Amino acid sequence: MINKLPSLAQLCKNLQQVPFLASKNLYKVATYFLTTDDEKVQRFCTALLEARNNIITCSQCCVWQEKNKKCIFCSDPRRDKTIICVVETWQELLSIETTDGYKGLYHVLGGAICPLDGIGPEDLSIDTLLTRLTPEIKEIILATNQTPEGEATAAFIARKLKNNVVVSCLARGIPVGSNLELMDKLTVYKALSERRPF
Amino acid sequence: MINKLPSLAQLCKNLQQVPFLASKNLYKVATYFLTTDDEKVQRFCTALLEARNNIITCSQCCVWQEKNKKCIFCSDPRRDKTIICVVETWQELLSIETTDGYKGLYHVLGGAICPLDGIGPEDLSIDTLLTRLTPEIKEIILATNQTPEGEATAAFIARKLKNNVVVSCLARGIPVGSNLELMDKLTVYKALSERRPF
Repeated sequence: MINKLPSLAQLCKNLQQVPFLASKNLYKVATYFLTTDDEKVQRFCTALLEARNNIITCSQCCVWQEKNKKCIFCSDPRRDKTIICVVETWQELLSIETTDGYKGLYHVLGGAICPLDGIGPEDLSIDTLLTRLTPEIKEIILATNQTPEGEATAAFIARKLKNNVVVSCLARGIPVGSNLELMDKLTVYKALSERRPF
Repeated sequence: MINKLPSLAQLCKNLQQVPFLASKNLYKVATYFLTTDDEKVQRFCTALLEARNNIITCSQCCVWQEKNKKCIFCSDPRRDKTIICVVETWQELLSIETTDGYKGLYHVLGGAICPLDGIGPEDLSIDTLLTRLTPEIKEIILATNQTPEGEATAAFIARKLKNNVVVSCLARGIPVGSNLELMDKLTVYKALSERRPF
Protein backbone atom coordinates (compact mmCIF):
# COMPACT_ATOMS: atom_id res chain seq x y z
CA MET A 1 0.00 0.00 0.00
CA ILE A 2 2.78 2.44 0.95
CA ASN A 3 4.37 2.09 -2.46
CA LYS A 4 1.25 3.49 -4.06
CA LEU A 5 1.67 6.75 -2.09
CA PRO A 6 5.05 8.12 -3.22
CA SER A 7 5.25 10.97 -0.69
CA LEU A 8 4.52 8.63 2.18
CA ALA A 9 6.94 6.03 0.82
CA GLN A 10 9.64 8.67 0.60
CA LEU A 11 9.01 9.79 4.19
CA CYS A 12 9.15 6.19 5.46
CA LYS A 13 12.31 5.51 3.49
CA ASN A 14 13.99 8.51 5.07
CA LEU A 15 12.79 7.64 8.55
CA GLN A 16 14.14 4.13 8.04
CA GLN A 17 17.66 5.52 7.91
CA VAL A 18 17.37 7.10 11.33
CA PRO A 19 18.94 4.77 13.89
CA PHE A 20 16.96 3.49 16.88
CA LEU A 21 13.62 3.61 15.12
CA ALA A 22 12.30 0.05 15.07
CA SER A 23 10.30 -0.63 11.91
CA LYS A 24 7.06 -0.96 13.92
CA ASN A 25 7.63 2.45 15.51
CA LEU A 26 8.53 3.94 12.14
CA TYR A 27 4.89 4.06 11.04
CA LYS A 28 3.90 5.64 14.33
CA VAL A 29 6.56 8.31 13.88
CA ALA A 30 5.37 8.88 10.30
CA THR A 31 1.83 9.26 11.68
CA TYR A 32 3.12 11.78 14.22
CA PHE A 33 4.77 13.86 11.51
CA LEU A 34 1.69 13.69 9.27
CA THR A 35 -0.81 14.60 11.98
CA THR A 36 1.01 17.14 14.16
CA ASP A 37 0.86 20.93 13.64
CA ASP A 38 2.43 22.38 10.52
CA GLU A 39 4.39 24.74 12.71
CA LYS A 40 5.97 21.91 14.71
CA VAL A 41 7.20 20.14 11.58
CA GLN A 42 8.57 23.38 10.24
CA ARG A 43 10.36 24.02 13.54
CA PHE A 44 11.73 20.48 13.53
CA CYS A 45 13.27 20.92 10.09
CA THR A 46 14.66 24.34 10.95
CA ALA A 47 16.25 23.05 14.16
CA LEU A 48 17.75 20.12 12.26
CA LEU A 49 19.30 22.23 9.52
CA GLU A 50 20.47 24.91 11.94
CA ALA A 51 22.17 22.37 14.17
CA ARG A 52 23.87 20.92 11.09
CA ASN A 53 25.04 24.36 10.19
CA ASN A 54 26.10 25.66 13.60
CA ILE A 55 27.44 22.65 15.45
CA ILE A 56 31.02 21.56 14.79
CA THR A 57 33.54 19.61 16.82
CA CYS A 58 36.23 21.40 18.82
CA SER A 59 39.55 20.89 17.07
CA GLN A 60 41.18 20.14 20.39
CA CYS A 61 38.82 18.02 22.51
CA CYS A 62 36.45 16.91 19.71
CA VAL A 63 33.34 17.84 21.75
CA TRP A 64 30.48 19.58 19.93
CA GLN A 65 30.74 23.36 19.93
CA GLU A 66 28.86 26.24 18.32
CA LYS A 67 30.55 27.60 15.21
CA ASN A 68 32.12 31.04 15.84
CA LYS A 69 32.10 30.42 19.59
CA LYS A 70 34.73 28.99 21.85
CA CYS A 71 34.59 25.40 23.10
CA ILE A 72 32.66 25.42 26.38
CA PHE A 73 35.20 23.09 28.01
CA CYS A 74 38.58 24.14 26.57
CA SER A 75 37.86 27.85 27.04
CA ASP A 76 36.33 27.61 30.53
CA PRO A 77 38.82 29.20 32.99
CA ARG A 78 37.22 27.38 35.94
CA ARG A 79 38.06 23.95 34.58
CA ASP A 80 41.18 22.10 35.68
CA LYS A 81 43.52 22.11 32.65
CA THR A 82 45.82 19.44 34.08
CA ILE A 83 43.49 16.47 33.69
CA ILE A 84 41.77 15.00 30.62
CA CYS A 85 38.90 12.52 30.76
CA VAL A 86 38.78 10.37 27.61
CA VAL A 87 35.30 9.16 26.59
CA GLU A 88 33.97 7.30 23.57
CA THR A 89 31.13 9.66 22.60
CA TRP A 90 29.51 12.82 23.93
CA GLN A 91 26.70 10.75 25.48
CA GLU A 92 29.22 9.42 28.01
CA LEU A 93 30.47 12.96 28.54
CA LEU A 94 26.90 13.97 29.42
CA SER A 95 26.70 11.15 31.98
CA ILE A 96 29.87 12.36 33.64
CA GLU A 97 28.80 16.02 33.53
CA THR A 98 25.49 15.24 35.26
CA THR A 99 27.43 13.95 38.29
CA ASP A 100 28.96 17.40 38.81
CA GLY A 101 31.96 15.51 40.15
CA TYR A 102 34.49 16.27 37.46
CA LYS A 103 35.89 19.67 36.58
CA GLY A 104 38.72 18.81 34.21
CA LEU A 105 38.89 18.70 30.42
CA TYR A 106 37.46 16.05 28.10
CA HIS A 107 38.47 14.23 24.98
CA VAL A 108 35.87 12.55 22.78
CA LEU A 109 37.28 9.65 20.77
CA GLY A 110 34.29 9.27 18.49
CA GLY A 111 33.79 5.57 19.24
CA ALA A 112 35.84 2.56 20.23
CA ILE A 113 38.22 0.29 18.35
CA CYS A 114 36.16 -2.50 16.80
CA PRO A 115 37.86 -4.51 14.05
CA LEU A 116 34.60 -6.36 13.27
CA ASP A 117 32.94 -3.06 12.38
CA GLY A 118 36.07 -1.88 10.58
CA ILE A 119 36.86 0.79 13.18
CA GLY A 120 40.60 1.02 13.80
CA PRO A 121 42.64 3.42 15.99
CA GLU A 122 43.11 5.73 12.98
CA ASP A 123 39.33 6.29 12.81
CA LEU A 124 39.29 7.70 16.34
CA SER A 125 40.75 10.99 17.55
CA ILE A 126 43.64 9.26 19.34
CA ASP A 127 46.31 11.24 17.46
CA THR A 128 44.62 14.49 18.49
CA LEU A 129 44.70 13.28 22.09
CA LEU A 130 48.45 12.59 21.87
CA THR A 131 49.12 16.11 20.57
CA ARG A 132 47.37 17.49 23.69
CA LEU A 133 49.92 15.83 25.97
CA THR A 134 51.78 18.96 27.04
CA PRO A 135 53.83 18.90 30.28
CA GLU A 136 50.90 20.76 31.85
CA ILE A 137 48.75 17.61 31.71
CA LYS A 138 49.15 15.55 34.88
CA GLU A 139 46.53 12.81 34.47
CA ILE A 140 44.52 11.05 31.78
CA ILE A 141 41.33 9.27 32.91
CA LEU A 142 40.33 6.54 30.46
CA ALA A 143 36.54 6.52 30.85
CA THR A 144 35.70 4.26 27.92
CA ASN A 145 32.82 1.82 28.35
CA GLN A 146 33.31 -1.49 30.17
CA THR A 147 32.80 -3.44 26.95
CA PRO A 148 35.42 -5.50 25.10
CA GLU A 149 35.74 -2.66 22.54
CA GLY A 150 35.96 0.04 25.20
CA GLU A 151 38.56 -1.87 27.20
CA ALA A 152 40.62 -2.61 24.08
CA THR A 153 40.57 1.07 23.20
CA ALA A 154 41.64 2.03 26.73
CA ALA A 155 44.47 -0.52 26.60
CA PHE A 156 45.61 0.82 23.22
CA ILE A 157 45.67 4.41 24.45
CA ALA A 158 47.34 3.46 27.74
CA ARG A 159 50.17 1.81 25.77
CA LYS A 160 50.63 4.97 23.69
CA LEU A 161 50.70 7.19 26.78
CA LYS A 162 53.08 5.06 28.80
CA ASN A 163 55.39 6.84 31.24
CA ASN A 164 54.47 10.30 30.05
CA VAL A 165 51.55 10.91 32.36
CA VAL A 166 49.45 9.33 35.13
CA VAL A 167 46.84 7.08 33.48
CA SER A 168 43.76 6.06 35.45
CA CYS A 169 40.45 4.42 34.69
CA LEU A 170 36.98 4.29 36.26
CA ALA A 171 36.43 2.06 39.30
CA ARG A 172 34.70 -1.25 38.62
CA GLY A 173 32.29 -2.74 41.14
CA ILE A 174 28.77 -3.10 42.40
CA PRO A 175 26.51 -0.23 41.26
CA VAL A 176 25.06 1.88 44.08
CA GLY A 177 21.67 0.59 45.23
CA SER A 178 22.09 -2.82 43.70
CA ASN A 179 22.18 -6.28 45.10
CA LEU A 180 25.13 -8.68 45.19
CA GLU A 181 22.79 -11.57 44.47
CA LEU A 182 21.67 -10.03 41.18
CA MET A 183 25.13 -9.11 39.86
CA ASP A 184 27.01 -11.18 37.31
CA LYS A 185 29.96 -13.06 38.74
CA LEU A 186 32.61 -11.10 36.85
CA THR A 187 31.42 -7.85 38.43
CA VAL A 188 31.40 -9.43 41.89
CA TYR A 189 34.89 -10.80 41.27
CA LYS A 190 36.16 -7.39 40.15
CA ALA A 191 34.53 -5.67 43.11
CA LEU A 192 36.21 -8.17 45.40
CA SER A 193 39.66 -8.12 43.86
CA GLU A 194 39.65 -4.32 43.50
CA ARG A 195 38.26 -3.76 47.01
CA ARG A 196 39.03 -0.51 48.78
CA PRO A 197 39.74 0.40 52.42
CA PHE A 198 36.48 1.12 54.27
CA MET B 1 26.29 21.10 28.82
CA ILE B 2 23.60 20.93 26.11
CA ASN B 3 22.08 24.20 27.30
CA LYS B 4 25.30 25.99 26.48
CA LEU B 5 25.00 24.98 22.82
CA PRO B 6 21.70 26.56 21.68
CA SER B 7 21.55 24.88 18.25
CA LEU B 8 22.11 21.46 19.76
CA ALA B 9 19.63 22.16 22.55
CA GLN B 10 17.04 23.17 19.97
CA LEU B 11 17.62 19.99 17.97
CA CYS B 12 17.31 17.82 21.08
CA LYS B 13 14.16 19.65 22.17
CA ASN B 14 12.57 18.99 18.80
CA LEU B 15 13.65 15.36 18.75
CA GLN B 16 12.17 14.97 22.22
CA GLN B 17 8.72 15.60 20.83
CA VAL B 18 8.98 12.71 18.38
CA PRO B 19 7.22 9.70 19.90
CA PHE B 20 9.05 6.40 20.39
CA LEU B 21 12.45 7.99 20.86
CA ALA B 22 13.61 7.05 24.34
CA SER B 23 15.69 9.83 25.89
CA LYS B 24 18.84 7.68 25.77
CA ASN B 25 18.38 7.09 22.04
CA LEU B 26 17.64 10.75 21.48
CA TYR B 27 21.31 11.71 21.76
CA LYS B 28 22.27 8.92 19.39
CA VAL B 29 19.74 10.17 16.87
CA ALA B 30 21.06 13.73 17.33
CA THR B 31 24.56 12.37 16.70
CA TYR B 32 23.31 10.63 13.55
CA PHE B 33 21.82 13.87 12.23
CA LEU B 34 24.97 15.85 13.10
CA THR B 35 27.41 13.40 11.55
CA THR B 36 25.64 12.02 8.47
CA ASP B 37 25.95 13.52 4.95
CA ASP B 38 24.52 16.97 4.33
CA GLU B 39 22.59 15.55 1.41
CA LYS B 40 20.84 12.95 3.58
CA VAL B 41 19.66 15.54 6.08
CA GLN B 42 18.45 17.74 3.26
CA ARG B 43 16.59 14.80 1.70
CA PHE B 44 15.07 13.94 5.08
CA CYS B 45 13.65 17.44 5.52
CA THR B 46 12.38 17.56 1.94
CA ALA B 47 10.64 14.20 2.30
CA LEU B 48 9.08 15.31 5.57
CA LEU B 49 7.72 18.59 4.23
CA GLU B 50 6.57 17.01 0.98
CA ALA B 51 4.70 14.26 2.78
CA ARG B 52 3.04 16.92 4.97
CA ASN B 53 2.04 18.75 1.85
CA ASN B 54 0.91 15.87 -0.33
CA ILE B 55 -0.61 13.34 2.04
CA ILE B 56 -4.19 13.88 3.18
CA THR B 57 -6.85 11.49 4.48
CA CYS B 58 -9.55 10.17 2.14
CA SER B 59 -12.82 11.89 3.05
CA GLN B 60 -14.61 8.55 2.84
CA CYS B 61 -12.41 5.85 4.35
CA CYS B 62 -9.97 8.13 6.24
CA VAL B 63 -6.91 6.27 4.86
CA TRP B 64 -3.92 8.36 3.72
CA GLN B 65 -4.04 9.38 0.08
CA GLU B 66 -2.01 11.61 -2.21
CA LYS B 67 -3.53 15.03 -2.73
CA ASN B 68 -4.97 15.42 -6.26
CA LYS B 69 -5.12 11.65 -6.67
CA LYS B 70 -7.91 9.22 -5.92
CA CYS B 71 -7.91 7.06 -2.81
CA ILE B 72 -6.12 3.82 -3.67
CA PHE B 73 -8.80 1.75 -1.92
CA CYS B 74 -12.09 3.56 -2.62
CA SER B 75 -11.26 4.08 -6.29
CA ASP B 76 -9.87 0.59 -6.98
CA PRO B 77 -12.39 -1.23 -9.23
CA ARG B 78 -10.95 -4.63 -8.26
CA ARG B 79 -11.88 -4.19 -4.59
CA ASP B 80 -15.12 -5.61 -3.18
CA LYS B 81 -17.31 -2.58 -2.43
CA THR B 82 -19.78 -4.57 -0.29
CA ILE B 83 -17.54 -5.10 2.71
CA ILE B 84 -15.76 -2.63 5.00
CA CYS B 85 -13.00 -3.57 7.42
CA VAL B 86 -12.83 -1.12 10.36
CA VAL B 87 -9.35 -0.63 11.87
CA GLU B 88 -7.98 1.72 14.51
CA THR B 89 -5.04 3.15 12.56
CA TRP B 90 -3.36 2.65 9.22
CA GLN B 91 -0.69 0.48 10.85
CA GLU B 92 -3.35 -2.21 11.39
CA LEU B 93 -4.48 -1.71 7.80
CA LEU B 94 -0.91 -2.44 6.68
CA SER B 95 -0.91 -5.67 8.71
CA ILE B 96 -4.10 -6.81 7.01
CA GLU B 97 -2.88 -5.76 3.57
CA THR B 98 0.32 -7.79 3.91
CA THR B 99 -1.78 -10.97 4.30
CA ASP B 100 -3.21 -10.46 0.78
CA GLY B 101 -6.32 -12.13 2.19
CA TYR B 102 -8.71 -9.20 2.10
CA LYS B 103 -9.94 -7.37 -0.97
CA GLY B 104 -12.72 -5.19 0.45
CA LEU B 105 -12.75 -1.57 1.58
CA TYR B 106 -11.31 -0.12 4.79
CA HIS B 107 -12.29 2.44 7.36
CA VAL B 108 -9.66 3.98 9.63
CA LEU B 109 -11.09 5.20 12.94
CA GLY B 110 -8.01 7.14 13.98
CA GLY B 111 -7.71 5.42 17.36
CA ALA B 112 -9.90 3.74 19.94
CA ILE B 113 -12.28 5.04 22.60
CA CYS B 114 -10.26 5.69 25.74
CA PRO B 115 -11.94 7.88 28.40
CA LEU B 116 -8.73 7.96 30.46
CA ASP B 117 -6.90 9.63 27.56
CA GLY B 118 -9.92 11.83 26.84
CA ILE B 119 -10.70 10.08 23.53
CA GLY B 120 -14.45 9.74 23.06
CA PRO B 121 -16.47 8.39 20.11
CA GLU B 122 -16.74 11.91 18.69
CA ASP B 123 -12.95 12.05 18.28
CA LEU B 124 -12.97 9.03 15.95
CA SER B 125 -14.37 8.83 12.43
CA ILE B 126 -17.39 6.77 13.54
CA ASP B 127 -19.92 9.23 12.08
CA THR B 128 -18.16 9.05 8.72
CA LEU B 129 -18.41 5.27 8.90
CA LEU B 130 -22.17 5.45 9.53
CA THR B 131 -22.65 7.68 6.48
CA ARG B 132 -20.98 5.00 4.35
CA LEU B 133 -23.67 2.46 5.26
CA THR B 134 -25.46 2.34 1.90
CA PRO B 135 -27.63 -0.68 1.05
CA GLU B 136 -24.70 -1.84 -1.10
CA ILE B 137 -22.67 -2.64 2.04
CA LYS B 138 -23.27 -6.22 3.15
CA GLU B 139 -20.74 -6.67 5.96
CA ILE B 140 -18.68 -4.67 8.43
CA ILE B 141 -15.63 -6.39 9.92
CA LEU B 142 -14.63 -4.81 13.24
CA ALA B 143 -10.86 -5.37 13.22
CA THR B 144 -9.98 -3.20 16.23
CA ASN B 145 -7.23 -4.42 18.53
CA GLN B 146 -7.92 -7.03 21.21
CA THR B 147 -7.33 -4.49 23.96
CA PRO B 148 -9.96 -3.14 26.38
CA GLU B 149 -10.07 0.10 24.34
CA GLY B 150 -10.29 -1.72 21.02
CA GLU B 151 -13.04 -4.03 22.24
CA ALA B 152 -15.02 -1.14 23.75
CA THR B 153 -14.78 0.70 20.45
CA ALA B 154 -15.95 -2.37 18.54
CA ALA B 155 -18.87 -2.80 20.95
CA PHE B 156 -19.82 0.87 20.57
CA ILE B 157 -19.79 0.65 16.76
CA ALA B 158 -21.63 -2.68 16.76
CA ARG B 159 -24.43 -1.09 18.80
CA LYS B 160 -24.67 1.78 16.32
CA LEU B 161 -24.80 -0.60 13.34
CA LYS B 162 -27.32 -3.01 14.80
CA ASN B 163 -29.70 -4.74 12.38
CA ASN B 164 -28.59 -2.70 9.39
CA VAL B 165 -25.74 -4.92 8.24
CA VAL B 166 -23.83 -8.12 9.05
CA VAL B 167 -21.23 -7.26 11.72
CA SER B 168 -18.27 -9.58 12.26
CA CYS B 169 -14.98 -9.42 14.11
CA LEU B 170 -11.60 -11.15 13.91
CA ALA B 171 -11.24 -14.71 15.23
CA ARG B 172 -9.62 -15.02 18.64
CA GLY B 173 -7.41 -17.96 19.46
CA ILE B 174 -3.96 -19.46 19.54
CA PRO B 175 -1.53 -17.72 17.13
CA VAL B 176 -0.14 -19.93 14.37
CA GLY B 177 3.16 -21.54 15.36
CA SER B 178 2.67 -21.00 19.06
CA ASN B 179 2.39 -23.28 21.99
CA LEU B 180 -0.65 -23.85 24.22
CA GLU B 181 1.62 -24.06 27.24
CA LEU B 182 2.94 -20.55 26.67
CA MET B 183 -0.42 -18.85 26.08
CA ASP B 184 -2.25 -16.86 28.75
CA LYS B 185 -5.34 -18.57 30.09
CA LEU B 186 -7.82 -16.09 28.66
CA THR B 187 -6.59 -16.78 25.13
CA VAL B 188 -6.79 -20.55 25.71
CA TYR B 189 -10.28 -20.14 27.12
CA LYS B 190 -11.39 -18.05 24.12
CA ALA B 191 -9.82 -20.52 21.69
CA LEU B 192 -11.70 -23.31 23.42
CA SER B 193 -15.08 -21.63 23.73
CA GLU B 194 -14.93 -20.26 20.18
CA ARG B 195 -13.66 -23.55 18.72
CA ARG B 196 -14.40 -24.32 15.07
CA PRO B 197 -15.27 -27.52 13.23
CA PHE B 198 -12.10 -29.27 12.08
